[in-house]
Amino acid sequence: MDLSKKIREVQDFPKEGINFKDITTLLQDKDAFQYMVNELCDQLKDLDIDIVIGPESRGFLVGAPVAYKIGAGFVPVRKPGKLPYETMRHEYQLEYGSDALEIHKDAIQPGQKVAILDDLLATGGTVLATAKLVEALGGEVVSINFLIELVFLNGRSVLKPYNIKALVSYDA
Amino acid sequence: MDLSKKIREVQDFPKEGINFKDITTLLQDKDAFQYMVNELCDQLKDLDIDIVIGPESRGFLVGAPVAYKIGAGFVPVRKPGKLPYETMRHEYQLEYGSDALEIHKDAIQPGQKVAILDDLLATGGTVLATAKLVEALGGEVVSINFLIELVFLNGRSVLKPYNIKALVSYDA
Repeated sequence: MDLSKKIREVQDFPKEGINFKDITTLLQDKDAFQYMVNELCDQLKDLDIDIVIGPESRGFLVGAPVAYKIGAGFVPVRKPGKLPYETMRHEYQLEYGSDALEIHKDAIQPGQKVAILDDLLATGGTVLATAKLVEALGGEVVSINFLIELVFLNGRSVLKPYNIKALVSYDA
Repeated sequence: MDLSKKIREVQDFPKEGINFKDITTLLQDKDAFQYMVNELCDQLKDLDIDIVIGPESRGFLVGAPVAYKIGAGFVPVRKPGKLPYETMRHEYQLEYGSDALEIHKDAIQPGQKVAILDDLLATGGTVLATAKLVEALGGEVVSINFLIELVFLNGRSVLKPYNIKALVSYDA
């Protein structure tokens, strides 16, 4: 199945000049949704993943069904203040200003094998921050898997040490 | 499995006097996560659900794996401004002030059978707004399923016309 045909492009969202990749059209199509999850799970085969991590909040949509299917636990990474228990925080730079992500301190046990799942690889900042949090807790980032990669933003260069895969690529 | 033992209670979050039910401890436990999803799917058996809806963002964690498992599509309901395409909005009252949720106008086709999934039934406002959006688009709300019900907040009275189920109940 060509998943790119199931993704809607919305011009000028969230701001002018951005051609937003809307995955809701894919998720609401039961066949495309099954296919997406199964393909992502195939990429994780034989990796013995203990924990799937998804960054808030579209990473939840991609990561939670994959965790279920492969029999792993799921751990959310969230914006500051959303997680109720003791957290570790990682701040990272944006084009203008900075942002931060948090994980529960007891979410990962040392030595656990972790896959990070997200909908879209753009500049890679969110997922790099997520990987740093996993490693700070002693987890091993075994794989990073995206539904979509915006190749022209070169996020792979930021994530170079990791094993990166994507189901759909856009060159422009 | 007694899922209540997998849910962590965090005192005074997000504000003093609230005993927050933290489901992240359940989700990160692979056996508990499998069990939760399977039990929710059992509740939907024979209902021919076309679409599972989850309200942002913990509803994504519960709803997306259930949609995958039962072979339905998944539709997100989100806070205003998050969905990129044409939306329908429903405003609803809170204790102080109001809030709103949005759905894509083409997310549900008339006559589709919908299950609404969320982590927690408190006063029922979020899920009632979600049900109104589904019905405004011509969908039929066949079932509303929660991981947790806070029985003492009496959310069921607000959701009276609907078929409501929860896996774990708290009486106080």
